Amino acid sequence: MANTGLQLRSTVKNDNTLELTLVDEPIPHPGPNDVLVQIEAAPLNPSDLGLLFGPADISTARVSGTAERPVVTADIPPQMMKMVAARIGQSLAVGNEAAGTVIAAGESDAAQALMGKRVGIIGGEMYSQYRCVNAFMCLPLEEGTTAAEGASCFVNPLTALAMVETLRMENHKALVHTAAASNLGQMLNRICINEGIALVNIVRKTEQEDILKALGATYIINSGGDSFYDDLTDAITETGATLAFDATGGGKLASQILSSMEAAAVRNMTEYSRYGSDVFKQLYIYGALDRSATVLTRDFGFSWSLSGFLLTPFLQKVGIEKSLQMRAKVAAEIKTTFASHYTREVSLAEALSLDAIAVYGKQATGEKYLITPQE
Amino acid sequence: MANTGLQLRSTVKNDNTLELTLVDEPIPHPGPNDVLVQIEAAPLNPSDLGLLFGPADISTARVSGTAERPVVTADIPPQMMKMVAARIGQSLAVGNEAAGTVIAAGESDAAQALMGKRVGIIGGEMYSQYRCVNAFMCLPLEEGTTAAEGASCFVNPLTALAMVETLRMENHKALVHTAAASNLGQMLNRICINEGIALVNIVRKTEQEDILKALGATYIINSGGDSFYDDLTDAITETGATLAFDATGGGKLASQILSSMEAAAVRNMTEYSRYGSDVFKQLYIYGALDRSATVLTRDFGFSWSLSGFLLTPFLQKVGIEKSLQMRAKVAAEIKTTFASHYTREVSLAEALSLDAIAVYGKQATGEKYLITPQE
Repeated sequence: MANTGLQLRSTVKNDNTLELTLVDEPIPHPGPNDVLVQIEAAPLNPSDLGLLFGPADISTARVSGTAERPVVTADIPPQMMKMVAARIGQSLAVGNEAAGTVIAAGESDAAQALMGKRVGIIGGEMYSQYRCVNAFMCLPLEEGTTAAEGASCFVNPLTALAMVETLRMENHKALVHTAAASNLGQMLNRICINEGIALVNIVRKTEQEDILKALGATYIINSGGDSFYDDLTDAITETGATLAFDATGGGKLASQILSSMEAAAVRNMTEYSRYGSDVFKQLYIYGALDRSATVLTRDFGFSWSLSGFLLTPFLQKVGIEKSLQMRAKVAAEIKTTFASHYTREVSLAEALSLDAIAVYGKQATGEKYLITPQE
Repeated sequence: MANTGLQLRSTVKNDNTLELTLVDEPIPHPGPNDVLVQIEAAPLNPSDLGLLFGPADISTARVSGTAERPVVTADIPPQMMKMVAARIGQSLAVGNEAAGTVIAAGESDAAQALMGKRVGIIGGEMYSQYRCVNAFMCLPLEEGTTAAEGASCFVNPLTALAMVETLRMENHKALVHTAAASNLGQMLNRICINEGIALVNIVRKTEQEDILKALGATYIINSGGDSFYDDLTDAITETGATLAFDATGGGKLASQILSSMEAAAVRNMTEYSRYGSDVFKQLYIYGALDRSATVLTRDFGFSWSLSGFLLTPFLQKVGIEKSLQMRAKVAAEIKTTFASHYTREVSLAEALSLDAIAVYGKQATGEKYLITPQE
């Protein structure tokens, strides 16, 4: 075995640029509770883009270096530099999750139990050929699961499950989801169909409607349609949805959803109230597919909340036992409920090509990359 | 005693206009738990404007009718009509709170105990010469309290107290308040000074800074200043404020406050996180002085929540015992902590003059009207 492995790094530099490089990183020796994983597949999720590209303008990206060691450079608009002041000059490893095979393990029982197994892992720095993590960061995959199948077993599956848990914990009866044809959205549809929960899917394109129709989704609303607001209000009235998860973040979509929920609530009111309905409406922004400002027209009364949503604090809130139950469900249903689809597999060097970079800039295209670092 | 009393009414009409009128309303007979109050003073709070004017364009207001029975008509922009669809054609009485004297009471002990007393009352329809309410809606004022002094004993005092209660319930150590030189803001300053809570006051004008300086406020930030963002971030860093109450609602102010809180949190971080700090930031919008859209740049991580805030649901949440404690404190400190200031007293008919209407349109001018319906 080699002493070093390739690792992808992202650095924000003082000259208002962001640089992506591949470096040789010494392969670490696992501590008592750690395992060393040879990474076989790691997805490029929208949630990876923040660290990978920061606020850089992807359209300015250029590639130098060699075919084996490409160097990508992109400009950061000067006014965005303050957002990333804390990472200037730091060479940061990227990649939230991956799947691979445990090739060395520390002496603890938990670590030894994983020796030789294929596992999904979480914890960052996954765009690497090798990664050493605590055994708790591993989800053992069932016999016959490929690395590609297991590569996305944390972020999307647990986020989809967290949405349904949130619905239960906060006493909502149905939910609205945006960017609903994404891998995560497809998982959420399968969960909701399995569990009989009404889900209102918002998409932007006809192809996306088709994906969800094929899955058996009941409510599919195209935000590009002329009757978007009315269609959405009808679906919310029918389902009673008062919870929404929005992957886009920017623009007027969050406001339109809250408005539609309020309009649905007002349909059921017998008396006018200047403060709007007393039906509580909660919208979580969990992504930033649209980085523009969120614009709220506030025509939805005073009984509402708009919040950021992140998986890790959610898992901390529900506790270890619940988190482990959620993981076990993912492992058991990784080929069905939690199946992910990729449009292309790329090596670490190929991930730094202009073609690939251009795709990251338009996550909504339906293109979805899987990095296979051993190639 | 007369059989009827004057009452101010607001009606949204099908022809895209809003109409304010005075009507003769039969004086009701109190039920067992009710008291009949002769209204002596009722404030025009920002929170009354929603019902009074709805989304009408105040600059289009014209007055017809007679001096004793003026009729105000104002145009509603057609696109705003859907917001008030539920009140079209309804003649609605206005006015959240008032003070007056109990001139008749039902047979219950609670009602009888108030007979002849001067009370503050809450419950809507207060721009009237007479108002019959449940005894629970009354706060008996202490001997020597005038109607003008007691007229604003519910909305502003309880909202200011609710802000401080929220700070405690949600474990924040300091708070930010906007439109901070308002009657409510002055009360909040006195409470926070009394209780040793750090309060960051945001104002827009030099005169407003002077009002708060005279009260002894420590942190006064002018949002019109060039160094607003830096000054605010410094004050938030110093105080550790992670809670804000915003009376304006529209524009970028809410976003700037959340940004400043995040910048203050990031100053204390040793490691960069692409998701921002894990310091939870809560901003409540409790007013709508600025009706334009709320614009969030979302440069404040994922650990935040922006919510509507209303007094009544808050009081329901904390329960009756706590609410009564808060009321008792208001009655005891109505001339000090909870003192309100008015710039002009007007009769019901004078409240419907063009001069008065113009003032309602610019609540931020510092003009503050008190309606005295017996004149």
